[in-house]
Amino acid sequence: MAEGDRTMLSGSADPMNLNGDHENRAKPVTGPQPMNGGNGTYSYSKNSSYQKESADLEKGKIIEEIEEKLDMKKLSSFSNTICLADLGCSTGPNTFMIIQEILEAMQRKHRSQLSQSCPKADQQYSDDHQMPEFQVFFNDLEANDFNTLFTSLPQDRKYFAAGVPGSFHRRLFPESSIHFVHTSSSLHWISKSPEVLQNKDSPAWNKGRIHYTSAPDEVVDAYAAQFAEDMKNFLNVRATELVLGGMMVMILSGIPKGMPYSEIPAGMLYNCISSSLMDMAKEGIIEESEVDSFNLPYYAASLEEMEEIVEKNGCFKIERMESSNPAAWLQNRPVDIPTLVKHVRAAVEGMFARHFGSEVMDEMFGRVTDKLLDISDLVNSRRDEKSQLLAVLKRK
Amino acid sequence: MAEGDRTMLSGSADPMNLNGDHENRAKPVTGPQPMNGGNGTYSYSKNSSYQKESADLEKGKIIEEIEEKLDMKKLSSFSNTICLADLGCSTGPNTFMIIQEILEAMQRKHRSQLSQSCPKADQQYSDDHQMPEFQVFFNDLEANDFNTLFTSLPQDRKYFAAGVPGSFHRRLFPESSIHFVHTSSSLHWISKSPEVLQNKDSPAWNKGRIHYTSAPDEVVDAYAAQFAEDMKNFLNVRATELVLGGMMVMILSGIPKGMPYSEIPAGMLYNCISSSLMDMAKEGIIEESEVDSFNLPYYAASLEEMEEIVEKNGCFKIERMESSNPAAWLQNRPVDIPTLVKHVRAAVEGMFARHFGSEVMDEMFGRVTDKLLDISDLVNSRRDEKSQLLAVLKRK
Repeated sequence: MAEGDRTMLSGSADPMNLNGDHENRAKPVTGPQPMNGGNGTYSYSKNSSYQKESADLEKGKIIEEIEEKLDMKKLSSFSNTICLADLGCSTGPNTFMIIQEILEAMQRKHRSQLSQSCPKADQQYSDDHQMPEFQVFFNDLEANDFNTLFTSLPQDRKYFAAGVPGSFHRRLFPESSIHFVHTSSSLHWISKSPEVLQNKDSPAWNKGRIHYTSAPDEVVDAYAAQFAEDMKNFLNVRATELVLGGMMVMILSGIPKGMPYSEIPAGMLYNCISSSLMDMAKEGIIEESEVDSFNLPYYAASLEEMEEIVEKNGCFKIERMESSNPAAWLQNRPVDIPTLVKHVRAAVEGMFARHFGSEVMDEMFGRVTDKLLDISDLVNSRRDEKSQLLAVLKRK
Repeated sequence: MAEGDRTMLSGSADPMNLNGDHENRAKPVTGPQPMNGGNGTYSYSKNSSYQKESADLEKGKIIEEIEEKLDMKKLSSFSNTICLADLGCSTGPNTFMIIQEILEAMQRKHRSQLSQSCPKADQQYSDDHQMPEFQVFFNDLEANDFNTLFTSLPQDRKYFAAGVPGSFHRRLFPESSIHFVHTSSSLHWISKSPEVLQNKDSPAWNKGRIHYTSAPDEVVDAYAAQFAEDMKNFLNVRATELVLGGMMVMILSGIPKGMPYSEIPAGMLYNCISSSLMDMAKEGIIEESEVDSFNLPYYAASLEEMEEIVEKNGCFKIERMESSNPAAWLQNRPVDIPTLVKHVRAAVEGMFARHFGSEVMDEMFGRVTDKLLDISDLVNSRRDEKSQLLAVLKRK
């Protein structure tokens, strides 16, 4: 390990760069915060079924890729332990369900490869003596509620569980120690909102908005550049950690190429948050400058952008990359807006509360719900866009 | 991995056997609970300096054993990652300090072995290219406050950190995956208090006491048998997890062979807890039957007992085993009894609160402090007994 890599092992004293170096900034840039902890009304553990339903649309594809393209025989020939990592696992339960599916698919693949190579072997003997052990690393930010995660681990799990605290934008694991990486609903969280968004002298000054939705191109470009930089780092560190032949599955928010973000429901939601906060500023509940200085560190890339970044990195073969409609599971039912807002709140409240104060959260999310309800026809008319990306990569 | 081992991977639905099967039992037997979490007045993180001072008395010996007997060259020839585990790590900070010392000793040993085998190698080159990476697994019970542990991890650490929830009486890690185990102030916690202690028809019925201190031999024997059973399991599972040549350091409470536990300060303390609770029962604050049904799952073995258990297991070479005075760091100063009780409270409050109710904890620990202060001369006269065990084992 070179000295340059070493610094990635540890957090710096300022891991999120919250005390960055830009002169024109009124407030620190916003870095990601963990999902809401615990098991309460607005907890992620109680409000993440939408993420599960959307991710479940990709489950069959992931299993297919494992069955067709993961060489378990090769992976287990170098080590008697197969290590999986879920990056951005939050507090459960979604992480436990998908890890279980992946693990079972890997076991099936292992058995099928085993029976191909020695068809007459006694099945029970093979299972007992040749099935590798599995170790699963659940990763999220240091401030994630790991206590809730650990106390809700499945009692009948057939793997060794470990929690790994830290940002997945840095090194988390030893070199060549991981065989399978899964990350869902996480990679659209960039490491920090771009500093230039707070620079009053820049065309990228993001005044009166909390996101790049409906913003000038310069704002969108600043977000896109940060995403590209983060993904570059992410792929570099994962390439170091994954064994050759190891697989990485990424599910994240996306957008059809060239489509303005305001044309999909998530963008409409961010616009409602921006205007709710501006209304509150006008009423004196918060300061307008607080809105100007807050930028949600969230970017949805197009499939083409992702493809370009992965190919530029060069360490991974793209086994599958496609976009799909994350709301397909709703079928013909309309979006339940109050429930949707609760799900969003469980995911983003930490960031807003840290900046605007937790005392205004009920007010803010209440207004957002009302505004979204007012445009529910519009939301429902655009909910079938392909705004979810799936990428299955193999370390080469 | 045989099927029998598989069950050790996962907790059962009743991992502590809290709902065991003994008919005569009024209340569930007491299993260990984690140390007090958080950073408050009675937290372990704020009240564990005594444990650190006592463990520090062994630090030099541990480093000596690493320097003299750990073959880093051999360990790192099979893997580019060296894995350490601290079992019963609690919330910090003690775990971070000792892990750092051990890790630095291992790095020094690695460098010295490297320079012996290729004395002319450029030192910087050797460091960068041949020093293995380190991964540290911090283990404690599922209910331990891992959130406090993770948010206080050293920012400048030179290792990959992971938390592993679960009882160390069961499997925690894949086969042959760990190179060094450290456990301090933990192994005297047995997996559960013996069920027979609650059997009114047995000579081991432990009426009116919360521990075997000043109890009939049958009570002491029941505790000793549980400890022997637990240590047998502990050594078996660790033998599976440790690589050949790997080292295990255990620091735990002990007692000179044949000495009644009432003759050392810890025993005096347990007697004060028993009598405080009995006083409270007489005053109607708690029920006397509650005292009868509570038994602290804590056993201090003699060096000879430990030696016999390790030798019977047969998987480990005893590199060093000795007893010493854990209060030696006090030098000539008397024991500060209120501070001592706060340290004990941080460690055991969870178990007492779960059984007697958290509302009587202030009352109980207040009375215990008063009773101990009344016998402070006696406590101080017996504080220099060799009641701490150190065992350094090597997997053979």
